[in-house]
Amino acid sequence: MGDIVLGVDLGGTNIKAGAVTAEGSVPARLSISTPEPAAGPQAVAHAIAEAARSVMKKLGLEPAAVRGVGIGSPGTIDLDAGMIGVSPNLPQLNGAPLRDMVEDDLGLQCVLENDANAAAMAENWVGAGRDAGSIVLVTLGTGIGGGIVLDGQIWHGLSYAAGEVGHMCIDPDGPPCPCGSRGCWERYGSATAMVARMRGSIRAGVQTVLTDDDTLSAQAIHSAALDGDAAALENIRETGRYIGVGVSNLLHILNPEVVAFSGGVTAAGDMLLDPIRQEVQARTLPFSRRNVRICYSEVPHDAGLIGAARCCMATWEAARRRIR
Amino acid sequence: MGDIVLGVDLGGTNIKAGAVTAEGSVPARLSISTPEPAAGPQAVAHAIAEAARSVMKKLGLEPAAVRGVGIGSPGTIDLDAGMIGVSPNLPQLNGAPLRDMVEDDLGLQCVLENDANAAAMAENWVGAGRDAGSIVLVTLGTGIGGGIVLDGQIWHGLSYAAGEVGHMCIDPDGPPCPCGSRGCWERYGSATAMVARMRGSIRAGVQTVLTDDDTLSAQAIHSAALDGDAAALENIRETGRYIGVGVSNLLHILNPEVVAFSGGVTAAGDMLLDPIRQEVQARTLPFSRRNVRICYSEVPHDAGLIGAARCCMATWEAARRRIR
Repeated sequence: MGDIVLGVDLGGTNIKAGAVTAEGSVPARLSISTPEPAAGPQAVAHAIAEAARSVMKKLGLEPAAVRGVGIGSPGTIDLDAGMIGVSPNLPQLNGAPLRDMVEDDLGLQCVLENDANAAAMAENWVGAGRDAGSIVLVTLGTGIGGGIVLDGQIWHGLSYAAGEVGHMCIDPDGPPCPCGSRGCWERYGSATAMVARMRGSIRAGVQTVLTDDDTLSAQAIHSAALDGDAAALENIRETGRYIGVGVSNLLHILNPEVVAFSGGVTAAGDMLLDPIRQEVQARTLPFSRRNVRICYSEVPHDAGLIGAARCCMATWEAARRRIR
Repeated sequence: MGDIVLGVDLGGTNIKAGAVTAEGSVPARLSISTPEPAAGPQAVAHAIAEAARSVMKKLGLEPAAVRGVGIGSPGTIDLDAGMIGVSPNLPQLNGAPLRDMVEDDLGLQCVLENDANAAAMAENWVGAGRDAGSIVLVTLGTGIGGGIVLDGQIWHGLSYAAGEVGHMCIDPDGPPCPCGSRGCWERYGSATAMVARMRGSIRAGVQTVLTDDDTLSAQAIHSAALDGDAAALENIRETGRYIGVGVSNLLHILNPEVVAFSGGVTAAGDMLLDPIRQEVQARTLPFSRRNVRICYSEVPHDAGLIGAARCCMATWEAARRRIR
C-alpha cells in the first residue's frame, strides 16, 4: 500500500474522510454528518478524528502506519495557526485552533488548508493539470472560488487569501455583491447568477418552460436546455461568455498552463465550455492564451480529500527541502 | 566595488546602460540613441555591446571583472531562446536572437528579460517592495503593463506572458482596445485613457482651462488640476478609481504584499493615489487587502537597468540552487 495519508473534506453538511495512497488512489472512504454549530468546535474536531479512526479501521491500519492528516475546509485559513478565520458555513470554527485540536485527539500530524486550494492541488496531482507547471482551479457553484498552484505549490499570498477569483470585478457598475463591491465575477458566472438572470428573463416575458418559483435552479436550466428550451440555452451560453471574461483576465495576469473548472455548474458540459473558450479566444492576447488548456476537473470524486492529503505531503516535502 | 553586473534598458528611442553593484547602486551610467529600425537587428546588438564597453571603460573595468549583462526590453520575450517575440517599438528585433548576438559581440553572458518584469525585480530589490514576499509592479504610461515577483522570482507563466495586467477586462462592453477585446484596464487607467476622457468632457462642454488639441496630455491635466481646475481634478480622481478596480482584482487573485506603480501617470502623486486606495478599500475583501502596501515606485531612476542586472544575478542564483 505504501505511505498512507488521510484526507478530510470538511463541509457544513458532511465530513468526508479517506485514505490516500502515494499514487493518489483512495482505497477506503466514508462520510458522516457535520455536528451542529451549537455543539461547538470540539465536536467538529472529535468527529474528524473519529472519521479518521474509522477509515484506519477499515484498512486495518495502526496510527503508526499513517503519515498524517490533511484537512480541507471552506473559508479563510490561517495556515501558520492552523485555524479557520471566517467560514460562513462553519461558524462554530471561527477562530478555533482546529488543526491542533484534531492533532491532540488523533495523535497524528495535521495540515489545514482551504478546500479550493486543496482541490487545485488534487487537480495538479491526479487530475486535469497532472504535472502541469501551473494551474488555476475555478469552482463554479453557489459562488465562484479558486485555488492557484504554481510550480507544484499553492500560491497563498500575504494573508493566505490568494485565489478569491470570484470577487474579481468585471463591471464596476454591475450588480451589488454581498462582499460590498459591485460586478464581482460570481455575480455573473455562478449558479446563483444563472438563476437570477433566468428569473429576470421569465419576468420580462421570455418564452420558456421554466417557472419563476422554488423549482428554478442551475440544474433545471440545464435540463430545459437539453430539451431544446431556447431561453435556457441562451442563459447557459451567456453564463459561459461571462465566465470566459474572467478566465481571460486570469490568463493575462498569470498565464497559467491549465484553467480547470469544478462545481455544480460544470454539469452543463460543452454547452457551457464552448462559449467559455470562444470568449477567451476573442479577448485574450495570443501569447497569453497559446497552449493554455481550458477544461473541466478530472478528479470527479474525492477531489477535496485527495487534495487535502496532497497538501499534507507537500508540506513535508517543503520541510525536507529546507532541512537540506 | 564587489561583483559588477551591467544592466541595459533597451527602448525604442534610447539605450540606457549602467554598472550595477551587488548592493544595487549604479556607479556609472550612460544613454545612447537606439539605431533606426532600418539598420536591422545587428545594429541594435552592436549598440548595446558598445554601450556596455563604454560603461566598463568609465570605471576602468576589464570584461573579466564583469559577471554578465542583463537586458530589459519592451515586448514579449522568449526567455529560453533569448529572443524578443513581438515588440511594436522595436520591430527590427522581432524574432532576432538578441541575447546571443550581444553575447557574441561582447564575450559576456547575457540575460534578456521583459522591461516591466525587470522593473518589478528592481522594486523588490532596492525599491518599494524591498524584501517583500511578493510584489506586483504596475506601469501606468501610454498603456498599462506589469511584472509579478513571487518569493523573489519573476512569475513568467507558460509562455513568459504573465503580467499583462493592462488587458484585464473591467467591463465586457467597454471601449474597444487595439488588442481586439473591449473594456481592458488600460482603456481606463493609462495616460491615453485620461486624455481620451478629458477630450470627451471638453466636447461635452465641461468648464475647464484645458483645450481639445495637441497640447492635451496627462501632464497638462495634472498641471491644470494643481491650478485648481475642477474638471482636471475629477479626471484624475476618476482615473484613480478605475485603477483601484484593477488593483482590487490583483489583490483578490494574488494577495501580494505590495502593489507599486511606476510610469508617467504617477506624477499626479496623492491626487491619484488617494482615490486608488479608497476604491481598493471599498471593493476588496478584508482578508485580501489586510497589510497590503499600495504605493509608488521607490526606484525613481534606472529601475529598468537595475532590474535587468538583478535578473541576471537571479538567474545565476537559481542555477546555483539547482546544482546543489
